[in-house]
This record gives sequence, C-alpha cells and structure tokens, in this order.
Amino acid sequence: MIVDRALTDAHAHALLRELTTVAPKRLSGSAGAAAAVAWGQRTLQAVGCDRVWLDEVMVPRWVRGDVEELVLLAGGEPTPLAVTALGGSIATPADGITADVVMVRSFEQLRELGDAARGKIVFFNRAMPRVLASTFMAYGQAVPQRTSGAIEAARVGAVAAIVRSMTTALDDHPHTGALMYDDAVPKVPSAAVSTLGAERIAASIAAGERVRLRLRLSCRSEGDVASANVVGEIRGSERPEEIVLLGGHLDAWDTGAGAHDDGAGCVHCIEALRLIRACGLRPRRTVRVVLFMNEENGLRGAEAYAAAHGAERHVAAIESDNGGFEPKGFATSEPEPRRSVVRALVAPLAGYGMGAVVGGGGGADIAPLARFGVPLYGLVVTSHRYFDYHHSARDTIDAVNEREVSLGAAAIAHLASCLADE
Amino acid sequence: MIVDRALTDAHAHALLRELTTVAPKRLSGSAGAAAAVAWGQRTLQAVGCDRVWLDEVMVPRWVRGDVEELVLLAGGEPTPLAVTALGGSIATPADGITADVVMVRSFEQLRELGDAARGKIVFFNRAMPRVLASTFMAYGQAVPQRTSGAIEAARVGAVAAIVRSMTTALDDHPHTGALMYDDAVPKVPSAAVSTLGAERIAASIAAGERVRLRLRLSCRSEGDVASANVVGEIRGSERPEEIVLLGGHLDAWDTGAGAHDDGAGCVHCIEALRLIRACGLRPRRTVRVVLFMNEENGLRGAEAYAAAHGAERHVAAIESDNGGFEPKGFATSEPEPRRSVVRALVAPLAGYGMGAVVGGGGGADIAPLARFGVPLYGLVVTSHRYFDYHHSARDTIDAVNEREVSLGAAAIAHLASCLADE
Repeated sequence: MIVDRALTDAHAHALLRELTTVAPKRLSGSAGAAAAVAWGQRTLQAVGCDRVWLDEVMVPRWVRGDVEELVLLAGGEPTPLAVTALGGSIATPADGITADVVMVRSFEQLRELGDAARGKIVFFNRAMPRVLASTFMAYGQAVPQRTSGAIEAARVGAVAAIVRSMTTALDDHPHTGALMYDDAVPKVPSAAVSTLGAERIAASIAAGERVRLRLRLSCRSEGDVASANVVGEIRGSERPEEIVLLGGHLDAWDTGAGAHDDGAGCVHCIEALRLIRACGLRPRRTVRVVLFMNEENGLRGAEAYAAAHGAERHVAAIESDNGGFEPKGFATSEPEPRRSVVRALVAPLAGYGMGAVVGGGGGADIAPLARFGVPLYGLVVTSHRYFDYHHSARDTIDAVNEREVSLGAAAIAHLASCLADE
Repeated sequence: MIVDRALTDAHAHALLRELTTVAPKRLSGSAGAAAAVAWGQRTLQAVGCDRVWLDEVMVPRWVRGDVEELVLLAGGEPTPLAVTALGGSIATPADGITADVVMVRSFEQLRELGDAARGKIVFFNRAMPRVLASTFMAYGQAVPQRTSGAIEAARVGAVAAIVRSMTTALDDHPHTGALMYDDAVPKVPSAAVSTLGAERIAASIAAGERVRLRLRLSCRSEGDVASANVVGEIRGSERPEEIVLLGGHLDAWDTGAGAHDDGAGCVHCIEALRLIRACGLRPRRTVRVVLFMNEENGLRGAEAYAAAHGAERHVAAIESDNGGFEPKGFATSEPEPRRSVVRALVAPLAGYGMGAVVGGGGGADIAPLARFGVPLYGLVVTSHRYFDYHHSARDTIDAVNEREVSLGAAAIAHLASCLADE
C-alpha cells in the first residue's frame, strides 16, 4: 500500500525540486544552509508532524571565495584545467603557487620519493578502480588521496596537493569534498582537478615535458557559526518514548545543488513520514526524522544529536545518504538471527527489486548512535551513476528520476512502519 | 573476466557516442539510416569479425516534414502545445484541422460515445499506470491508444486523434511511435502531445470551457526504399554452422538520437563481440551480430532475416532492446528444466546484480525465429527511467551511463560465450 501510494501520489521529487531551488547552495554555515533549515522546519510541519524543533549546533564555516584557477604549464600555451578547492583548504598566496609537479598513485609511492617532492606540487592521480561492482568500494580505495593528500604532501615538503576527482566518469567536472589537516605538519592548499584534466597532466608528464602547475585559491575558514539539526516526529500511539529514527543530511557541497547528496536522503525521510500519514497508519512507536547539519565537513550535527538524544530509546536508526537512485534494500548492523527477521519484514518490497537485506552500517550521521547500542540501517541504492554527480556541478535535480526517488521513500516508510509497530 | 574487461577497457559508450554522432537521425529509409548501416558495417569489421555483410531489405520511408503544430483553443489566448506526429500518420490539410475535442481514456469509452465523436478530434488521455513496478507493463497497457487510436477514432467518425505521450514523466517532451491504419476505415492524422500538454487540455475540459484543437502536420509516406540489415560474425572454431545470434535494431525514431532505443542494444552486441575477441576467447560455435533495420515501423528487417536465415541452425538468439540501463539478467523462452541450466550459466554475473533469469521472450526482432524453434533471450535492464527518454528528444547519449551500458555488453558477451561453448 505504501509503495502504491509513493508511486501514484508522489511528493519526493517535487520536495527535492523545492529544496534545491530554495537552497541550492547550502554548505554548513552559509546563508543557504540557514534557508535549508527553515525549509526543513516548515516542510516537516506541512507533512503532518506532531512536533517539529531545531537542535542548535555550532558548525565550521568555510568559504570558497572567487578565485579558483589551475593552469598547466608544459610545452606550448598555458592550459587552464577545471578545478575546485577541497573543502577546508587554505588559500594560496594571491599570485598563486607555481611549482614543478610530481605525480604519484599512492602514499607509499610518495614516501619513496624522499626529498624529490620538496618544494613541488604533488599530483595524486590514482583513479577510482572501475572494475568494482560497487562504486562506493572504489571510492573508499581512492578517497584517502583527497582526505589526507594535503597532509602527506606536506610531510615530504611539498607546497600543494592536486587530486584527481573522485568519479568513475571521464569528464571535465571537478569534484570537491573534505580534506583534513594535521597540526604536526604545515597546511598546504589542495584542490581537485577534473578527470580529463588529470589525464591531461599525466599525458604531459608521459611526454617527458617539464610540467609545472600554477594554483590559485582564495578559500578560507571563518570559524564556527550557529546552525541546527531539524527534527520532526509523529508520536507513537502506544510507546511514544521508543523511537525509529530516519535521517539524511541537509548540508551539501556548494559545487552543485546537493540533489543526490543528500537532498534525496532528506526527502526520502520526509516523504516516508508523509506516506505513513497519508496511508492512515498510526505507528505504535514514534517515527522521528532528523535532517542532520554538517555531514560533509565536520559531522557536528551527528555528534550533537547523539550527545543530546543518544540516551533516549531508539529502537532503530535508518539513514539515506547514497543518492536518490533505484533502491535495492537495506544494509544493517543487525546480526543473525535478527537480520533474517528484518529480511521477512522487507520481503513485500521484493516485487520492486528492493527487498535485499545485507550486512553493513547505516551512514555517517547515525554512526554515533552505535555507542548507545542502536541498530543501524542504511538504504542501499544502485551505485553506478552516483559518482558521476557526487560533489560536482552535475548534482542537480535533473539527475534524479522521480520514480527512483519515490521508491526510496517508500522503502524507508515501509521499514520504518514495520519497526515502529513490531 | 569478461565483466572486468568490459568495465576497465570499455568501448560501448564511445561506440554509442560515435553512432549517435554519425547518424543521430536514422529512421528507416532516411539518409541517416544509410549512414548508420555504413557505420555498422565498418564497426563490425573493426572489432574483428571474420565476416561482415549486408542483407538488403526494402523498408517504408515516412517523412516527418516541417510542420507540426497543435494549438489549444479554449478560453483565453490560443495555446501552442508540444506535439509530434506519430510515425506513419498522414498529413492534415495545409491549413490544419480545427475541431472540438472529446477526451476518452479507453476504446470502450470512445465507443459508448456513439455519434458524439463525429467530426471531432479524439483526445486519448489514458496515462501509463505509475503504480506498476515494470514500466514496460505500464506501456503495454497504454500504448494501444497510440497504435490503434487513429483507427478507433475514424470508426466513430472523428477527424483526428491526439494521444497522451507514452511516458511516466510529467514534462513537455512529446513521444512519437508507430501507428497502424485499417483499410476498412478512413485514415485520420494522429499525433502525440506531451504529458504536460495533455494535462493542459484535460484542465480546460474540466473547467467546462468549449475546447477545440487545431492540428497541422505535413508528414507523408513515400513508399518503400532499399536498406539493409548489417550482419557480422566470429566463425565458430568447432561448429561454425551453429549460431548464437546477438541482435539490436539500427533504426530509431527521428525525435532524439536513439541512444537508448536502440543504439544501446546495437553497441551491446557489437561490444560483446569485441569483448569475446579481446579476452582471447575462441567460441566453439559461431557468434553472429545482427543490426536489424526497421524495428520501429515495419519489422521488415526481422522478417527478412528469418526468411533468409531461419533455416540455419541457431542455437540461441539474444536481443537487447530495452535501453542501456543497469542490467538485471535475462528473460528467456526456455522452459524448465533448461531455464535452470541457463541460470547456472549466468550465475557468475550475480555479483554485478545481473544474474536473474526469468521467463519471457526476447524482443521484436528475434521473435520471428520462434517459428524455427530457436530459444529466445532478452537482456533485462532496470526500466524506471526508460520512458523518460523513449521516442523523444531526450533519447541522447547524455542519458546513457557508461558503466551501465558496459555491463549490458558484458552480460551479453558472457551468455553468448557460454551458449557458444556449451
């Protein structure tokens, strides 16, 4: 019944269009993030929550600035390459950093260079392995270049780090994402080049040319500012103190509109709650939606929620943060024999190809609840297209199919209502 | 091994880009179709066929012409609506047909109108049911309006038929497709209006306004012209006279570029053959690729192939004509216990989510081979997005994901090589 309703009286895509129109740019601490919080609050009220509130949380504010430039200086004319600063990066000097390039595909390879990277720009060019069935596994293998590349580059005396974008596509869209710094080594600026740009640099190196890059970034961190998690719930009819939590994250990288990451997750959860209402269900336990703030560059919302609410009795937490694609089922931290019970609960979803239950976690925003023994669930969706869009200018509403995002909401509504009534 | 190769040394998407660039418009009998035939021939040669040839076939030539106009005349200003002539439709008079509208959602409803439709334009507004898990099932329920609407409208004395586009999306892209005429009733012109246009007409009717439409079309049929099926094969190393056939159709509607329908099917088959070569396999039986002509509006290629080659020993025929989306497995005409044997053959594809074997046919182009007792297979892919693109201007290369189309080729290569060696 829930799935029928989700497909025939579908609000998920329209809600996502609204969010990505009202707050297309909503990185933590930005005006767009504040607009997204206000949107989340009024939308949860509109879909029939018994109670909606904001839990304030301090978040880091990082600003991209106006200048992003990467120029390849090799044989021939200087060639501008498509680039995006990594989130959290420091700026370069106003006239940029120009240096010779060393290309590596692993941290081991970088360390073996010894002093050869000193004063240079390190170019991390390990591609996401295309051969893996799950692009998330491929991402996991390549993404340490992005998160730790600036640290590793600084350790060997390099002056900047350029990273091949995290995508399986070969195109000219750079993909941003968070980096870390380590107080024990200098901070160096770091940016992602498009995969075509990466191929261009590699080709120049392979041609035996002297290859230099000029990098200019004007991004900066501006300390912490106040923001909020948005929380709304339908109170349980019999055991209101027991909670089934549904979560996605409201913040998004500023390169695109965060349609898949994680606008889709937010509307999955909001629409799931609306579907429960629209189908006239009265869950015995409370169903609570949390739109987390700051998943992308701090996880402050996740930590704040666990600190404030972890002691409440959560019977389950379900997260959606893998995009609005065709659902396959759920990953869960529940071991056997409980996992088989869950499999029976979601068996009615099998006709839509979304009845699988596999092992795994839920997602970054609900992970801190594991400390409180909360069973975690994550919506599993097909992953082939995700990194075409992830953290790039392509992550817009047009990349989200209405049927696919509606089915994700239906799957979550079904599991949530089963767990709330069990 | 085949799947690894398909993902890491992937040619399918590049081949599809080439086809949709060389021959974006390739409706049967057009110059584009001739260019597509030439492309198919040289591409099959390039991927290492032992033999490539053309089987000539006469095909109908239908030309859209320059004029396509549908105007809603109700209260207020005349409103142009997005429209496309249905393939095979006759033209309207040069100054168009202007008439009152009767809206129906079924042929039964139309017949019950009795004389009320005489001299009017029939507007078939049955939507594809969104609730079905398979959009192909939904298409099957709604598409008789398009294929037979002109006949049914003429039977009750109507002067034209307008059909709601066959798509689950609500947008402004009209979707074309073939219609049939019946010599027993007059031919009336017929066209598809976008789903938003359909909603617009329905809203005017619901508002109680007098609703008229003006339709102008300049399309025409120009008789039969010569074209060809393109055939290429790797000769079997032990039983060359036994054939595993792989097929897609080379012709496509002229509204888009036929990227999913059925450029994807063509490159699935060509790339499957290339993968077999690239992996160094030497199939015991012959693997033959047929790029059929005229699937969309005549099936002449399918009939010609069966007539010319049906008596040869085909051990299997595998068709891909459901788009270049994520594969799920195969549908087959093989009954049990043979179906379970096939299931075991494709079990290695399960890790990529494409190991399913279900009952069903293959597709329109290989269907005539059933007369010769040939076991039929069809590649099954996820269907949620297909009708967003099908027969519309949106069916372009950008709608095809490289990983997804590569996996389709891999699945076909795997099954073909199993069946050729069995």
